[in-house]
Amino acid sequence: MPADVVTMDKIVSLTRRRGFVFPSSEIYGGLGSTYDYGHYGVLTKNNIRSRWFESMVQERDDIVALDSAVILNPLVWEASGHVEGFTDPLVDCRTCKLRFRADRLEDSHCGRKPSKRPGETPDCDLTEPRQFNLMFETSVGALTEEGSKAYLRPETAQGIFINFKNVLQLARRRPPFGIAQVGKSFRNEITPGNFLFRLREFEQMEMEFFVPPDDAERWHAYWIDARLAWYRGLGLRESSLRVREHGPEERSHYSLATSDIEYLYPIGWSELEGVANRGDYDLRQHTEASGTKLEYVDPDGSRYTPFVIEPAVSIDRIMLALLVDAYDEEVVEGRERTLLRLHPVVAPVKAAVLPLISKESAGMVEPARKLYEELRRHHFVEYDDAGNIGRRYRRQDEIGTPWAFTIDDVTLEDGTVTVRDRDSLAQERLPLDGVRAWLDEALERPWEPLPR
Amino acid sequence: MPADVVTMDKIVSLTRRRGFVFPSSEIYGGLGSTYDYGHYGVLTKNNIRSRWFESMVQERDDIVALDSAVILNPLVWEASGHVEGFTDPLVDCRTCKLRFRADRLEDSHCGRKPSKRPGETPDCDLTEPRQFNLMFETSVGALTEEGSKAYLRPETAQGIFINFKNVLQLARRRPPFGIAQVGKSFRNEITPGNFLFRLREFEQMEMEFFVPPDDAERWHAYWIDARLAWYRGLGLRESSLRVREHGPEERSHYSLATSDIEYLYPIGWSELEGVANRGDYDLRQHTEASGTKLEYVDPDGSRYTPFVIEPAVSIDRIMLALLVDAYDEEVVEGRERTLLRLHPVVAPVKAAVLPLISKESAGMVEPARKLYEELRRHHFVEYDDAGNIGRRYRRQDEIGTPWAFTIDDVTLEDGTVTVRDRDSLAQERLPLDGVRAWLDEALERPWEPLPR
Repeated sequence: MPADVVTMDKIVSLTRRRGFVFPSSEIYGGLGSTYDYGHYGVLTKNNIRSRWFESMVQERDDIVALDSAVILNPLVWEASGHVEGFTDPLVDCRTCKLRFRADRLEDSHCGRKPSKRPGETPDCDLTEPRQFNLMFETSVGALTEEGSKAYLRPETAQGIFINFKNVLQLARRRPPFGIAQVGKSFRNEITPGNFLFRLREFEQMEMEFFVPPDDAERWHAYWIDARLAWYRGLGLRESSLRVREHGPEERSHYSLATSDIEYLYPIGWSELEGVANRGDYDLRQHTEASGTKLEYVDPDGSRYTPFVIEPAVSIDRIMLALLVDAYDEEVVEGRERTLLRLHPVVAPVKAAVLPLISKESAGMVEPARKLYEELRRHHFVEYDDAGNIGRRYRRQDEIGTPWAFTIDDVTLEDGTVTVRDRDSLAQERLPLDGVRAWLDEALERPWEPLPR
Repeated sequence: MPADVVTMDKIVSLTRRRGFVFPSSEIYGGLGSTYDYGHYGVLTKNNIRSRWFESMVQERDDIVALDSAVILNPLVWEASGHVEGFTDPLVDCRTCKLRFRADRLEDSHCGRKPSKRPGETPDCDLTEPRQFNLMFETSVGALTEEGSKAYLRPETAQGIFINFKNVLQLARRRPPFGIAQVGKSFRNEITPGNFLFRLREFEQMEMEFFVPPDDAERWHAYWIDARLAWYRGLGLRESSLRVREHGPEERSHYSLATSDIEYLYPIGWSELEGVANRGDYDLRQHTEASGTKLEYVDPDGSRYTPFVIEPAVSIDRIMLALLVDAYDEEVVEGRERTLLRLHPVVAPVKAAVLPLISKESAGMVEPARKLYEELRRHHFVEYDDAGNIGRRYRRQDEIGTPWAFTIDDVTLEDGTVTVRDRDSLAQERLPLDGVRAWLDEALERPWEPLPR
């Protein structure tokens, strides 16, 4: 279906209906822009995380893993510039009492006349902008005075920089090499929204790649290409991906150059992943603030502070892009179906095992259970015996299950099962004892999205 | 080696030296009882998490996954009893200015005379105990008044309870069924310590199993047995595991009965995992506070509030138990070696590929790289060409790599490699093109720890 027919509402509705994503704390009226992932959401996220980790760490020589704490020594955030500079400008309206991002007034609505933007009506009375820090604050220890103040990390990257020397020494690395980390980050956004696009807590996947300064531009280009290829490998359509270079005014305080890999979300082209050249900013800041030299000393005695190339993304935004890209509706033989044409590598359930008749006495349950129990030792598969077969197929379509194996009368005669393909709806018969190998192979086959 | 020779210091030293665990924010003087996991620590944690998730969710019909937010609506913690009751009693000494847990004075040391405990010296001047809440507080949104106060979750369980109805409806479940969740929890412990044993932030793996009230005791017993079996399956020694039932005075406010699976850590027998019968406490509390009925309605019209059986553990404590259990030192042919006899399923690196001579011209690098690149598509393996072969073996022993494949002169002649077994030090030769299948099989073989 055409991309512009895939609305955010349809995605929110499907993911809610099928248990991918729930509004968080719903029975208590929610908590703005916070979501809980249900069963299929968790499985999809696990697949995204695994693919990232495999491609970044397992399948490479030059990147190692790290998992640093959420609450770091607060001096880290002083040195990184976040205490000073990780802020949004806010204005209050003294009339309607609402608060707005001063740099996004054009996207905001007056509290009295929502058809106007703040400042456009005579009774708007806006304060001067003031800087509001996006880091969540807390206190560590039993004392509550200033000395115990701490922050929830707004990015995982700083946990990597402060461990640079540990990894250099213990993992016996020399530039170019990288440190990869997956974990939650927290930002007290004033205007979060657009479903999973901007959240107050989100799961980041960041990799800091340390290189000789002269090679930084080349590696920056390398990582933009590598990350684009990775998204294609997840099945995202070429036509919905593009690279956009930041202008000087939109770059973060640490960035020498940043390119966004953008995806065509229902809200328009927006950042999926940022690939930044952070230069030597962070290592220098921490060297100065901590007194620990974060530099590379070559065996020949020469020394330098590496530059850092950083591909950084959140699993939540990838999840949203995958859902949008995979969402489809079609009419087949007079019946509507909604489906997620997810790449099998990210589909939450790889295959469904369905006994045509779920009464034990029909003899299909036993072989179906046996097949299911064999397959689930290796893959996430589902056994479903509830409702008529058409309804079960439609349920599997909506959660994006690539294949369904149906045990029917013929199975009892000749030991074959039907395999149904989610995308083409083609059906073929396979010997029961060949299903495991067939599925293993099917999961390795190249997969391409349909053009839109 | 005898269990009592494995000291916490030895574990801390090995894990630091080999990059499993670093003190967090070290270049800034650290942050009490917070650790960052290095490369091998991350890989080991990933293995623990995967095994838990596979056994809890993938390999069962009756448990689904959830991933709820860290910062929930604060009403959740009012209803759960945590705002009121999740506290430790503290006393201050007006003389030495130190603060102590009132219920652990016997483990504390006077600030003036450390050989005495607080209250034992004439100049101790202790205040009355006051209750200190263990939840970290923060504020959400741009306002900082009372209405925006929020908490970092001290357990993942409440995120499960408040989604009970969603899962009941959407995952089409009826008791007995469970909801499993993995994620960080945070506790502002006054006396954290003992390395990974008690941390301020830790990664929990919790499963809430909802059952008819009359079946709760039976399911409680079932889960204690199932979890014990799971730990045996990770290779922990039978002799270092035991079950201990809580006395009435040590149970949490929600618990009808709790049994700890304890491990014999260097600090003595201590909780590894708690298996609690939470009764219907949580669902009833949230029903009352939210006005949403969290109960099960049978198709026959009967209704009840399920009881909850909860196996809850942190990955960090499992990691510590695995390290303690696996640590060994021995003298072989006059040379000392330190090794981690980890079960292959949790070992961070499954195999090392080692060219005997790392000079390109010796001809061993090419087949070694080829083998390494084939194996790493399926398993975490490592290529190591640095230093003499004995040193490389010792390095792999210390990170617990079960097998090493060495490419040597004979490989170039007859296409076989040496496989060295970490535990027995036995060596045999395998055809190069059979290594992949050999490793797949070896990873499926039963594995038993050596008796201590």
